[in-house]
Amino acid sequence: MLKYTHVEDLTTADVERLRSLYEPLTRAVRDLIDATIRTEADAEAVTAATAQIDAATASLRSSQLDGAFGVRYVTDGDPMPWGNAVIGVRNPSAPPLVIRKVSDGPASTDRYVTSDFYLGAAFEGPPGHVHGGVSAMLLDHVLGDAVSTPGVHRLTGTITVRYRRLTPLGRLHAEARITHTDGFKTYATGHIADADGITVEAEGVFIEPRWARA
Amino acid sequence: MLKYTHVEDLTTADVERLRSLYEPLTRAVRDLIDATIRTEADAEAVTAATAQIDAATASLRSSQLDGAFGVRYVTDGDPMPWGNAVIGVRNPSAPPLVIRKVSDGPASTDRYVTSDFYLGAAFEGPPGHVHGGVSAMLLDHVLGDAVSTPGVHRLTGTITVRYRRLTPLGRLHAEARITHTDGFKTYATGHIADADGITVEAEGVFIEPRWARA
Repeated sequence: MLKYTHVEDLTTADVERLRSLYEPLTRAVRDLIDATIRTEADAEAVTAATAQIDAATASLRSSQLDGAFGVRYVTDGDPMPWGNAVIGVRNPSAPPLVIRKVSDGPASTDRYVTSDFYLGAAFEGPPGHVHGGVSAMLLDHVLGDAVSTPGVHRLTGTITVRYRRLTPLGRLHAEARITHTDGFKTYATGHIADADGITVEAEGVFIEPRWARA
Repeated sequence: MLKYTHVEDLTTADVERLRSLYEPLTRAVRDLIDATIRTEADAEAVTAATAQIDAATASLRSSQLDGAFGVRYVTDGDPMPWGNAVIGVRNPSAPPLVIRKVSDGPASTDRYVTSDFYLGAAFEGPPGHVHGGVSAMLLDHVLGDAVSTPGVHRLTGTITVRYRRLTPLGRLHAEARITHTDGFKTYATGHIADADGITVEAEGVFIEPRWARA
């Protein structure tokens, strides 16, 4: 069973304060990741930057969580999946995706989720293009978001990803929606697109874990 | 068509020199990513670290590539997919996977690839566990590596990922092998396992792009 952390003593204002402290740090590290891949600075500059980064890391580690970030809930607020590999606002490796929920009708299949995002050098596979695995990762998350509702955690059972053509690095769009449900199984479909249309599509079945069905 | 960069003027010794310059930088940034997610240092320390990181980034950006890293080839050496999202030795977001090729017989289906790796806080989805999308990303790469041979680039056509149970963060193992080939299509299967066995499995079809079949 998964441990979701309930942080009782944080108000929504506390969460906003933490977000405004950590977002600039995360953005700075995300920018550094890109610079690390693309730098052509001389050896002296690279070595000096390495030492500077080690010093920043040591300072941040002076007080830290024992393990990974987890998923926290506050009494009056949203969940805080801030360490999440795809959407985490404290995870510099995450693009991060900001996912918007949209509804064009009353049925569960009328709801869909959508995200506009940018993928740079850190997400490269074939030269100049998004790593196929990155597309699979993002689609897993976006489809999983489409099937989830507050308090109902659904985990991927199976996902199939079809690559129509290569996805260029740059500005991209993803969306996903539920196609149907069958007991504790929910089926979803979605895609990634660039300005010229769909590049990758996915379909998946998501399962409400046994321990959450009570 | 993809642009693979042929860097004619680098010897194997040059490549090793570059690797020994950039690997410590990348490791430092990878460590910083983990610290950024897990830090509980006070606001003053976080703000100071942010400024220090911005300074390192500015210095690295004083001279940089116009775009993403690409995939480079040197005359007498291996390819250098150093920016790759999964295996890139210059990509701090990559775990990175180190993939070993093994053969237990003469047929193409006797070859397999294997990788032992560690996933920490940056790869989290469900609390304490690997993001399902990260598993899909790594399997896409490992299966793609199993079907590829020097000079033959095969791209994912379709991949299906099945989640048997949650994958804990920590030390993990992946492997993949070709099951059969059919013209320009190559089929592969693989999995991720923890100490207790397989957690996620995948099968995929990989395609030699039309422009590479000449």
